[in-house]
Amino acid sequence: MPKRILSLLVDNNPGVTSRVSGLFSRRGYNIDSFSSGVTLDERFTRITLVCSGDGNILEQITRQLEKLEDVRDIKVLEPDTSVIRELVLVKVSVNPAQRQGVFSVADIFRAKIVDVSVDSLVIEMTGNKSKVDAFIRLLSDYEILELARTGVTGLSRGADDVTYL
Amino acid sequence: MPKRILSLLVDNNPGVTSRVSGLFSRRGYNIDSFSSGVTLDERFTRITLVCSGDGNILEQITRQLEKLEDVRDIKVLEPDTSVIRELVLVKVSVNPAQRQGVFSVADIFRAKIVDVSVDSLVIEMTGNKSKVDAFIRLLSDYEILELARTGVTGLSRGADDVTYL
Repeated sequence: MPKRILSLLVDNNPGVTSRVSGLFSRRGYNIDSFSSGVTLDERFTRITLVCSGDGNILEQITRQLEKLEDVRDIKVLEPDTSVIRELVLVKVSVNPAQRQGVFSVADIFRAKIVDVSVDSLVIEMTGNKSKVDAFIRLLSDYEILELARTGVTGLSRGADDVTYL
Repeated sequence: MPKRILSLLVDNNPGVTSRVSGLFSRRGYNIDSFSSGVTLDERFTRITLVCSGDGNILEQITRQLEKLEDVRDIKVLEPDTSVIRELVLVKVSVNPAQRQGVFSVADIFRAKIVDVSVDSLVIEMTGNKSKVDAFIRLLSDYEILELARTGVTGLSRGADDVTYL
């Protein structure tokens, strides 16, 4: 199933998250990843979402998104010409003998240890989806207690294709 | 206005994003930040959202969230006992004379340069909200072309308060 990454610039109105995501759910479409945060201009929020499925239906949904009053701009982020990043926090159960092994995995991925307790570690890592997936696979040799991903966000590379802030 | 960070573990059903965010918008509540990503068990998604407003209404919304069939667990993440992180991508317009200055700001915040073009840089930075805000304020001395934030995600510290994956 082809995946598509959409970057939306929307008015920071109550309900905009619900209106945008509702267009997908009404057609039974699952959103694989959804992230939103204000831009430099606090009147606007950037929503990045990843969806997969039939191209024709995605085209229809995109046209409906364009019609929403809240939506100021829609871009498709192409992996080749964009920076796509995600943040993941992983909590791993470790005994003293295992700790060094987890540190080594973290080092390889330039991940940061952000919490240490007697029997657990929380590690922060960023990367594109495949790097995050590989990191989680390697940590699966240990007992992963909890995991939180932000979902991806992204920007086009270079200064040519800029819209708003 | 007090802010509250909610961490929800939900079934990975179509429409769950829309149902969760709809409970806030129906009461005119703005969601400041919304991030969602699958957990280790792909049947479940973790949604982290930040909302601010009247405590009583937030309690009501939380009780309604608990009643949603999709929602398996709700936790309030307290800043003192949690790791809260966000990822931001910032695209800055730079001429050769300015480039070193931007590198220095990135160094201070342990940020990574993830794209370089003739006249722009894209920088990736992670931290809690106040660190991200400070980073953006410092970069505002330059021309910020675009900015994308994932919204925050988080986990409780230590291994005591773990629910699912």
